[in-house]
Amino acid sequence: MPKIVDHDKKREEFLLASREVIAEEGLNAATLRRVSAQAGCTTGSLTRYFSDRNTLVIETLRLAHFAAASRMRVAANKATSDYDRLEQVLLESLPLNDKRLQEWRVWLAFWGATNGEPELLTENETRYKEWQTVLATLLEPLLSSKSDIEQEAYNLRALIDGYGLGIALSGSNTRRLKEAQKRCKLQLMAYLQRFKN
Amino acid sequence: MPKIVDHDKKREEFLLASREVIAEEGLNAATLRRVSAQAGCTTGSLTRYFSDRNTLVIETLRLAHFAAASRMRVAANKATSDYDRLEQVLLESLPLNDKRLQEWRVWLAFWGATNGEPELLTENETRYKEWQTVLATLLEPLLSSKSDIEQEAYNLRALIDGYGLGIALSGSNTRRLKEAQKRCKLQLMAYLQRFKN
Repeated sequence: MPKIVDHDKKREEFLLASREVIAEEGLNAATLRRVSAQAGCTTGSLTRYFSDRNTLVIETLRLAHFAAASRMRVAANKATSDYDRLEQVLLESLPLNDKRLQEWRVWLAFWGATNGEPELLTENETRYKEWQTVLATLLEPLLSSKSDIEQEAYNLRALIDGYGLGIALSGSNTRRLKEAQKRCKLQLMAYLQRFKN
Repeated sequence: MPKIVDHDKKREEFLLASREVIAEEGLNAATLRRVSAQAGCTTGSLTRYFSDRNTLVIETLRLAHFAAASRMRVAANKATSDYDRLEQVLLESLPLNDKRLQEWRVWLAFWGATNGEPELLTENETRYKEWQTVLATLLEPLLSSKSDIEQEAYNLRALIDGYGLGIALSGSNTRRLKEAQKRCKLQLMAYLQRFKN
């Protein structure tokens, strides 16, 4: 009798294994062989889903983005006001827990690998544009002028990247990391006050 | 007769060659063999200055930081007021021309390589602390409360990282890059208005 395999689930398992390897050991470590071992499978079963390393790596980046986007949607739906929605979604975007830190480390590894790699740059540009649109939509009910919305969305994107980067690069010990996470959260909440009423 | 070699100059030539390779082809490309070829020398003459690849790579990061710091000091000395000093130094920190873009790409490559590399994280933490102190010193004459200075320095660090990242990741074509540089410059100048008077 043939084994029944849930292909979507299998695919995601490989991507989560890839994410772990990239976050903990760096992009170079994420070879087909290493990722399949991490998932407890053979390289042959991995290549049935991802034909080469580049595809696996780009799909890992996409998974991190889509997982983040989906959690943000949940946060947005729970919000009690327009301001609360902005705050909750932005807090969700920061690497304030282990899972999100892993996603940020995947992004960081990608950003670092874009030199001389136009395919990765284009992938990043697409994600940036989507994120910028989300930010503008969140700001829209809080600001009256269209040019303010664009300007503030641009700064929020930069600020979140800078905050997240600061946290992701504070990982030389756990105490430092916890401090950086706490500090970032407070700084963001204070910064957002400017959008209140 | 023995050849007369200016050792400091030679050392810097290797570091500049390393920077070029990292910025254009990525960190992985910066092997001892590739960097010495870029500098037009033998691997043997390179290893007289840098015993291994890790040392070469960390020294390349340091050079990028020290070169940036030195240009910022020049900018600071030319300033006509405290506000002007803040603006000039921050503009100098952004990747608004090719040389600075190359430095940013070196940083980006490093940040991406920090996963699982505590030595690189510690190096980054040292640079971050120095930069945070510079920012606080620039803000000091413009803000009255100590806690405001710290908070604003923290946000400026994050904002500059986010702006720079946005520019460095806009490199899929020249038009996009120029637009990103122009946009960042305007956004920064508008943001700094809050420190005027």
